[in-house]
Amino acid sequence: MKFGGTSVANIERIRNVARHVKREVDAGHEVAVVVSAMSGKTNELVGWARETSALHDAREYDAIVASGEQVTSGLLAIALQSLGIPARSWQGWQIPIQTDDAHASARITGIDGSELIRRFKDSKEVAVIAGFQGMNVESGRITTLGRGGSDTSAVAIAAAIHADRCDIYTDVDGVYTTDPRVVPKARRLDKVAFEEMLEMASQGAKVLQVRSVELGLVHNVPVFVRSSFDKPEDIDPHGTPPGTLICSEEEIVESQVVTGIAFSKDEAQISVRHIQDKPGVAASIFGPLAEGSINVDMIVQNVSDDGKFTDLTFTVPASEFVRAKDTIEKAKDKIGYTKLDTATDVAKVSVIGVGMRSHAGVAAKAFAALSERNINIRAITTSEIKFSLLIDAAYTELAVRTLHTLYGLDQA
Amino acid sequence: MKFGGTSVANIERIRNVARHVKREVDAGHEVAVVVSAMSGKTNELVGWARETSALHDAREYDAIVASGEQVTSGLLAIALQSLGIPARSWQGWQIPIQTDDAHASARITGIDGSELIRRFKDSKEVAVIAGFQGMNVESGRITTLGRGGSDTSAVAIAAAIHADRCDIYTDVDGVYTTDPRVVPKARRLDKVAFEEMLEMASQGAKVLQVRSVELGLVHNVPVFVRSSFDKPEDIDPHGTPPGTLICSEEEIVESQVVTGIAFSKDEAQISVRHIQDKPGVAASIFGPLAEGSINVDMIVQNVSDDGKFTDLTFTVPASEFVRAKDTIEKAKDKIGYTKLDTATDVAKVSVIGVGMRSHAGVAAKAFAALSERNINIRAITTSEIKFSLLIDAAYTELAVRTLHTLYGLDQA
Repeated sequence: MKFGGTSVANIERIRNVARHVKREVDAGHEVAVVVSAMSGKTNELVGWARETSALHDAREYDAIVASGEQVTSGLLAIALQSLGIPARSWQGWQIPIQTDDAHASARITGIDGSELIRRFKDSKEVAVIAGFQGMNVESGRITTLGRGGSDTSAVAIAAAIHADRCDIYTDVDGVYTTDPRVVPKARRLDKVAFEEMLEMASQGAKVLQVRSVELGLVHNVPVFVRSSFDKPEDIDPHGTPPGTLICSEEEIVESQVVTGIAFSKDEAQISVRHIQDKPGVAASIFGPLAEGSINVDMIVQNVSDDGKFTDLTFTVPASEFVRAKDTIEKAKDKIGYTKLDTATDVAKVSVIGVGMRSHAGVAAKAFAALSERNINIRAITTSEIKFSLLIDAAYTELAVRTLHTLYGLDQA
Repeated sequence: MKFGGTSVANIERIRNVARHVKREVDAGHEVAVVVSAMSGKTNELVGWARETSALHDAREYDAIVASGEQVTSGLLAIALQSLGIPARSWQGWQIPIQTDDAHASARITGIDGSELIRRFKDSKEVAVIAGFQGMNVESGRITTLGRGGSDTSAVAIAAAIHADRCDIYTDVDGVYTTDPRVVPKARRLDKVAFEEMLEMASQGAKVLQVRSVELGLVHNVPVFVRSSFDKPEDIDPHGTPPGTLICSEEEIVESQVVTGIAFSKDEAQISVRHIQDKPGVAASIFGPLAEGSINVDMIVQNVSDDGKFTDLTFTVPASEFVRAKDTIEKAKDKIGYTKLDTATDVAKVSVIGVGMRSHAGVAAKAFAALSERNINIRAITTSEIKFSLLIDAAYTELAVRTLHTLYGLDQA
């Protein structure tokens, strides 16, 4: 069971979390709980580190920021004990949750779950684990996993203790076909394949950290996204609570062709015109961008009609647009292009579904439907289970609604 | 160097602390710094633990509360690095600072300072150590040393790294002959013997935690109490800054007979009348009090004139008076007394000085002086280097001023 910052924002809510845990324990389950910092705390700690020095040591940043989860883990252990449930808190270094030394965005390299399992068996003790943090064993120092890292902690621990399921309690009650604020007819999905969720998470759906979904896929840990606002007492622990199960494709019996529509408005487009169509030219563009740690998303390059010159279009997050443009302009001589066309008011809309693997013509239907609405498609990229379209940002909502209806995702 | 909560209350003050440290490093010193939590933070954390459950697990309390010092240690390390000083933070479990398992009031059992020393030599790295916390090695869990424990951390670490001196930066500029708010003529002492400071600390002077002074005495670590409000740049690191050195008796060349006057108003007195003067009667009184964890301070029992019956008087903190009285009343049959006399508006005034060892009649002068002022002495206890008088609380200030003048402690 994993609870995020808003679920543990104050003592009253921590008590509520304890009752959720008690329900599962009473139903005979062995439970590990992963908690985030009380909402606002991590921002406060990050703010102090930044105020002290803009260029702060990431190792010290981690020691500071990890303290937020330390507090919540202790408080929840106390709340559980006061309900008569044996419980203890675990910090990342106590288990330990081993990570590499990439401080502030460390990756988990190993977790030994045997002591936690032993305590489940011996004393029915609930493990309350500080999320987001780990330890680099070589240096003995505290690490953190980056924003949203508690989701990753939860799935990694679930794998380490061979959990049947990892329940992510969050402020939404599941994964929707698209953002319900944009499409009121959006439906909650009962099941989503890991691969689909990966696309949806990285395409702008904010429910789960991408890495936690990757981990679920690799270790085959079913992840259940559910609401932390449901009253603990109203839920039947043996029933099927509302939520979305993220699981392997095989477990989804009746898969639809399209599962969901994701979109992202904070995009910027750069088109590099009239570059030579020869090996190495792409590297001359993306090498300097990678060196500047600029995150390139869509890349579109057409086959040139004369075999000599072509255009290349790519997108970057809007926040990195100025740096990206500057980088490409500085490398003009090396790349050898005639001019740059750029656009900042663009959005990316993605259509996702494992069913695309076995269905042809899914994308073609979209092109026709958007054309009918006079929505111009600037660029297209595709993968096995999704395709993404770059359009003018002003048409985002219209495009999402159109596609949502087109692929039969609207609520009955 | 140890800095308390008010000295690290915000980022600006943490930067100020960093400049204090830089001054000492620039003067060629190898420095370990011990920090408390930002002022108010520990209270906030304790409040959360109590709100979650009044009867909380002390092990979880420790995990929660220790996070405050973790934050400050990281922030100060960052502040030092930004001044170009190599520095890293150390949590209690990283060194480790080994303690027993008396959570929330643990005692330090060992510190291996060799790694800190190695880093002084190898890379001139300043060790920034989270005060107040340690680890019980058997359980691998975080412990805390009780309120004011950072002083104890500082002196213990100073001993472990063979420091020449332990500087306690605080919100007062040293130890005074008595509380300057009561006696404006109180003088700052240049030097105080450990034994005297022990009496002054446990008699109500709030400058240093008693256990830190005990540790200084045992390991012979000179402790220098000085102000954290002095501007770092105004201090000559090779000069003699204002403050009080707490050191061994031998280093105090010209000792006065009386060093200081301590007092405590939060006292309550219980007199047990007409008890049998035989072995075991004291145990029948203090046994039940000890079982109830009631802290008994002064104990006065006179020799009975008939060898059969006597009276016994003791004091407890005012906050424990009701429980203490109740305990004694419940044990009435077992103790066998006629009646209890109690008083809650009483104060204890103590006169302290190692010079008393070699001077007779020190206390007698006090009795005469107080009598002249019509101050009634309710009870007297003495030790080698101090005597304490129990009086009506209303006369506290008058008694303290009278004794301060009597023993020549007033400023010239």
